[in-house]
Amino acid sequence: MTDGGTSATVPVIRFLDEARCRTLLGECRVGRVAVLVSGVPHVVPVNYAVLDGDIVFRSGTGTKLHAAIQSQPVSFEVDRIDEVTRTGWSVLVSGVATVVTDGDERERIEVLDVEPWAPGTRDELVRVRVDLVSGREISRP
Amino acid sequence: MTDGGTSATVPVIRFLDEARCRTLLGECRVGRVAVLVSGVPHVVPVNYAVLDGDIVFRSGTGTKLHAAIQSQPVSFEVDRIDEVTRTGWSVLVSGVATVVTDGDERERIEVLDVEPWAPGTRDELVRVRVDLVSGREISRP
Repeated sequence: MTDGGTSATVPVIRFLDEARCRTLLGECRVGRVAVLVSGVPHVVPVNYAVLDGDIVFRSGTGTKLHAAIQSQPVSFEVDRIDEVTRTGWSVLVSGVATVVTDGDERERIEVLDVEPWAPGTRDELVRVRVDLVSGREISRP
Repeated sequence: MTDGGTSATVPVIRFLDEARCRTLLGECRVGRVAVLVSGVPHVVPVNYAVLDGDIVFRSGTGTKLHAAIQSQPVSFEVDRIDEVTRTGWSVLVSGVATVVTDGDERERIEVLDVEPWAPGTRDELVRVRVDLVSGREISRP
């Protein structure tokens, strides 16, 4: 059914269970890390991978790393949104970020595709333990 | 460089000036609001519009509104990312969210396209005053 970009059909919202959320996390490559900077949420896109169910990505110095070092709670979001059909889904992860210093663990991450897109040195590996995951999907059946 | 073979060219990062950021904000329809919920950043996609340079969107009860009512600082992010070419841009806004109660101001917002995609009642109109805006773009010339 086509709706010409508007909502001719009635939208349906569905909350995604953890298994579905984790599948979607595994299918994406870019997500958004939200960390607190001076008490204000700050959102930065990152190229990430999934290791043992956790989110891993590279970082240089800066807000993401700053948060990671301090083991602050962070959020991580991925979504796929279609502005034409006005449908899509989003998954939100809450967890604690840590800098990975263990050599074996670093090696396991480095073989994944966590190369940053931006130029510059990003030697730190950050791992976000997934404590909570939730998702929702809007469709127009 | 060795990054999986998709980026044969050297990436370039460019910081976007305010005018460019505002142009990009005006061209998108969906962004991500980041608010604090119990001290943890929470990220929610919203369908938004721009009014007098500010971000406006609808909300029902929930975290976004909760933040808005309390005039907490929030962030708002938009991006366009191409996972194949590993290029893209993102714009981040910091500001204070307020619920719009003034009748004239509500009317000015309601004629914009701020209809929520999800079902349910979202009678509240939220306005995020843009205090700070920054952006960056990764290209591979």
